[in-house]
Amino acid sequence: MQVYNAPLRDMKFVLHELHDYKAIAALPGQEEFSEDLVDTVLEEAGKLASEVLLPLNAVGEAEGCTLENGKVTTPTGFRDAYNTFREGGWTGLGAPQEYGGQGFPEMVGKMVEEMICSANLAFSLYPGLTHGARRAIAEHATEELRQAYLPKMIDGTWSGAMCLTEAHCGTDLGLLRTRATPQADGTYKINGSKIFISCGDHDMVDNVIHLVLARLPDAPKGVKGISLFLVPKFLPNEAGEVGQRNGVTCSGLEHKMGLRGCATCQMAFDDATGWIVGQPNKGMAAMFTMMNEERLGVGIQGLGIGEIAYQSSVFYAKDRIQGRSLSGVKSPDKAADSIIVHPDVRRMLMTQRAYNEGCRALGAWVARAVDISRHAPSPEEREEAEEFIAFMTPIVKAMFTDFGFDSASLAVQVYGGHGFIKEHGVEQFVRDARITMLYEGTNGVQALDLVGRKLPAHMGRYMRGLFHPIAEFIAENKTNPALASFIPGLEQAFGALQLTTGKLAEKMMRDPEEAGAASTDYLRLAGLVGIAYMFARSVLIAAPKVGEAGPEGEFYKAKIATAQFFYDRILPQTAAMFLSIKSGKASMMALAEAAF
Amino acid sequence: MQVYNAPLRDMKFVLHELHDYKAIAALPGQEEFSEDLVDTVLEEAGKLASEVLLPLNAVGEAEGCTLENGKVTTPTGFRDAYNTFREGGWTGLGAPQEYGGQGFPEMVGKMVEEMICSANLAFSLYPGLTHGARRAIAEHATEELRQAYLPKMIDGTWSGAMCLTEAHCGTDLGLLRTRATPQADGTYKINGSKIFISCGDHDMVDNVIHLVLARLPDAPKGVKGISLFLVPKFLPNEAGEVGQRNGVTCSGLEHKMGLRGCATCQMAFDDATGWIVGQPNKGMAAMFTMMNEERLGVGIQGLGIGEIAYQSSVFYAKDRIQGRSLSGVKSPDKAADSIIVHPDVRRMLMTQRAYNEGCRALGAWVARAVDISRHAPSPEEREEAEEFIAFMTPIVKAMFTDFGFDSASLAVQVYGGHGFIKEHGVEQFVRDARITMLYEGTNGVQALDLVGRKLPAHMGRYMRGLFHPIAEFIAENKTNPALASFIPGLEQAFGALQLTTGKLAEKMMRDPEEAGAASTDYLRLAGLVGIAYMFARSVLIAAPKVGEAGPEGEFYKAKIATAQFFYDRILPQTAAMFLSIKSGKASMMALAEAAF
Repeated sequence: MQVYNAPLRDMKFVLHELHDYKAIAALPGQEEFSEDLVDTVLEEAGKLASEVLLPLNAVGEAEGCTLENGKVTTPTGFRDAYNTFREGGWTGLGAPQEYGGQGFPEMVGKMVEEMICSANLAFSLYPGLTHGARRAIAEHATEELRQAYLPKMIDGTWSGAMCLTEAHCGTDLGLLRTRATPQADGTYKINGSKIFISCGDHDMVDNVIHLVLARLPDAPKGVKGISLFLVPKFLPNEAGEVGQRNGVTCSGLEHKMGLRGCATCQMAFDDATGWIVGQPNKGMAAMFTMMNEERLGVGIQGLGIGEIAYQSSVFYAKDRIQGRSLSGVKSPDKAADSIIVHPDVRRMLMTQRAYNEGCRALGAWVARAVDISRHAPSPEEREEAEEFIAFMTPIVKAMFTDFGFDSASLAVQVYGGHGFIKEHGVEQFVRDARITMLYEGTNGVQALDLVGRKLPAHMGRYMRGLFHPIAEFIAENKTNPALASFIPGLEQAFGALQLTTGKLAEKMMRDPEEAGAASTDYLRLAGLVGIAYMFARSVLIAAPKVGEAGPEGEFYKAKIATAQFFYDRILPQTAAMFLSIKSGKASMMALAEAAF
Repeated sequence: MQVYNAPLRDMKFVLHELHDYKAIAALPGQEEFSEDLVDTVLEEAGKLASEVLLPLNAVGEAEGCTLENGKVTTPTGFRDAYNTFREGGWTGLGAPQEYGGQGFPEMVGKMVEEMICSANLAFSLYPGLTHGARRAIAEHATEELRQAYLPKMIDGTWSGAMCLTEAHCGTDLGLLRTRATPQADGTYKINGSKIFISCGDHDMVDNVIHLVLARLPDAPKGVKGISLFLVPKFLPNEAGEVGQRNGVTCSGLEHKMGLRGCATCQMAFDDATGWIVGQPNKGMAAMFTMMNEERLGVGIQGLGIGEIAYQSSVFYAKDRIQGRSLSGVKSPDKAADSIIVHPDVRRMLMTQRAYNEGCRALGAWVARAVDISRHAPSPEEREEAEEFIAFMTPIVKAMFTDFGFDSASLAVQVYGGHGFIKEHGVEQFVRDARITMLYEGTNGVQALDLVGRKLPAHMGRYMRGLFHPIAEFIAENKTNPALASFIPGLEQAFGALQLTTGKLAEKMMRDPEEAGAASTDYLRLAGLVGIAYMFARSVLIAAPKVGEAGPEGEFYKAKIATAQFFYDRILPQTAAMFLSIKSGKASMMALAEAAF
């Protein structure tokens, strides 16, 4: 059974207690987003997620999208839900006010995103892709294009899509073939075909605005010859409304493992009219504006799936009776005890829970940096935040989605054989979650981005935003009795990360393949250390409050218990990663290609 | 793309070089199964798998099974393939000769099973379930029942099914409600309903023989009141052929995440005639005869999926071009290099490979023990083998299927976005593999069986079959230069296993929940040590042969490289498990139920 109630108490803990949201609301221009206001927004978003989006999750799965006579139809109810969503102002929640958005801080936006992704991952893509597209337009397009497109994308009457991948190239966009031919009027004719275009066409909006990577006629080979174009499904007429149909059509829907409620399109561009966004041949830079935004968002998708997987598991673990507790019968009135009494079931639930709480805290820390990078008065502070975001983005994307998939698979395991049966709805989480490890750059690409680009950038400066606070925290709390069972674990894991980072930097200089060989383990090592730091800080906050009466005291007790579980059962994996990275590339690369 | 060629060279290595098959063929009554003969059988099975079963894997997935007017229809081609399979004598390969089987050793049988599971997991269930059922009949039923059913189940004209699970009980069979009422003629009337019955009904055979767990009227509560009954779909007539229809019908097909080619049935028993198998109220013991057999088989399913996932990944990694090697361009004539040049892709392929080779070696060691337990002349030797099998069965079932699922998911990752698209066929592996972690006892149940039952049995005697040979091997090879980069890792991991075993035994005596808290990690720790031992022995065999000319030398080189990868990149996980187990149950059980 798909069960979801927004984890508001934990979100508020993360926002206000752990990450001092007050300081974000105090940034210039952010004053209107008071603590009370954001709490209300979170509560409303939670209702929307549970009441409107969750019931459609199974419908989307059952019906999928259809393409008939060139028209893409979304599952029953999606269009109405989108209208509710749009009318509630959710499409413009974090968008700039100058184009009609509400300008809410990213910290809040990402929590709302988490809820939407929990309740209905397929639905979340429709507004989600629009965010990235409108950000690229806002940052790189001419003011004329901004005025023409942003207000409608922000109020949700139009949506956005990112058209990057072609059948023969995804990771290596340098190979792409879609062509853009300049026209006398300053526009371009776009020709080519794209695949895997999430929300490339659908019936919930009047117009879809494509951001398309293509090559100019005289473009250099490879990634240095790629430009970005805005290509609307319908050309705006003089009133700025939907006008003439443009030469871009959905030529097919992909048949996917999951995420069936999301229209994943093959798109054909046939002399479609487009406008350049940013400079010629600088499309990759503009594209990365969308991409980095999306990558954080995809990480949040992983967390969202993890949360609904956890809640659905808890529901079943309390409901299903099977066997008796080894510490004595718990429900003598029933034929058996609930399976939540069994340690191995607890192991699964606590693992999901620790992943979710850990990722929520870490993700909010990065979202906080996004707010600082946008609104902090000093350029130094903004730059520091940007570097931290750059370092953390691949970690959030890859680790959160790995965990989301693992949590989904654990949900199936908690349900036993019933988890494999479609009616219970948890196997859908596994299939939906699987895409998050692939799109917007596979998790392997994330790891290489972290180790190959972010780590060496500016002589290792990017990592400081993660490393320095941890070092300070350890130094400050070394003898803090509240952290007695946490500091040693944190110190050891952080020590392993520091040592690995130093050794790896050395090795990579001699041999760049060493970066690739270490990358996936390194990303996870850094991510686990980040979560360990979040939990240790959380314990420090929770410890003095465990005596509070009622559910508040229980919340803080549970926070400490979950932190302890993470330190006992998950953080030790860093020891394995340390050893694995240390072994280097030799055995990974030893086999001749023919021997495979 | 689903790619499969039976890994014959590795199978022969495992059989002849690693596990001295000659000694098995020398056991009393096994002399006819010469090395040459079994090699021929493996080659023929490989052809059958690739040529007959593999092409139907996607068909089974696309069509699924259907139930119409009470009749279950398997996917197009399954029936013909089954006839080919049956006519080739494959259904009776390992069955006793006295009932028409061929009596081949289990070592060979399990390798053939691996091939079938690789090529078409859904198909493999039909003959697979029959094996377990006919074994229970052979060991527990009256001679009259044996004569009536075994020859037809062995020649494949009739198939078998195991009817255990009911909607409200799977793991806790003590709760089951199906009733058996004794009749004057010595038969029983069976009434009740069962779910999740693999191959419970289908159109490939003339008759389906159900082994059904049910309660006698006067039965004690719980598992001590369960009896086993044989309930055929059609009652045999006087000629022993299909006669009157019995009161057992398929009332529905389960809608599953995967394994769509396999008919998973809800079965209704309505005054069905049955015969008791074994003693009244001793059904669980008889059932475990099927179950243990099936559990080893399910482990092999995991390996089978792992192997096709690996081969399909290798195919794509060589075929797909994307990016350039960091150690210099490898295919200057192409627009990009094959993705197999990238270290992180190598990591995924080598992980799959190491899992497969490791599990194949370990699984064959257990299968070898099955042959010894059946044919060794001395009762001591047979008992020792049985104890080793008892200890290793949960490890094989759980670890192999975990690895199979991981390998399948890695295949999707190697394919990138294309892995998520149904047409490529690798996402099917993930969905098919997922059931193997659930059925015949979830992997959590396996772990509890290992730690709660097998570990303490006879004061820890069962583990000796694994522990003693490893201790001896380490002692013998401590200074062997061929093993210089293996013995330290093996010694450390084995040391961790020994220490953990001792401490855990102590803890469990004080608190049985400690067993459950440690179980999943302990199973994996023991399994990884087992694989490490297999690889170390393999290296010892391979080292002197790496200089051989041509593909033979390459095979041994690759064996050593894969072993080294396992020691470098996978075995270090034992360090994490050691620490995780050491932390005990406290944080796992700390949360109040209401706090979840």
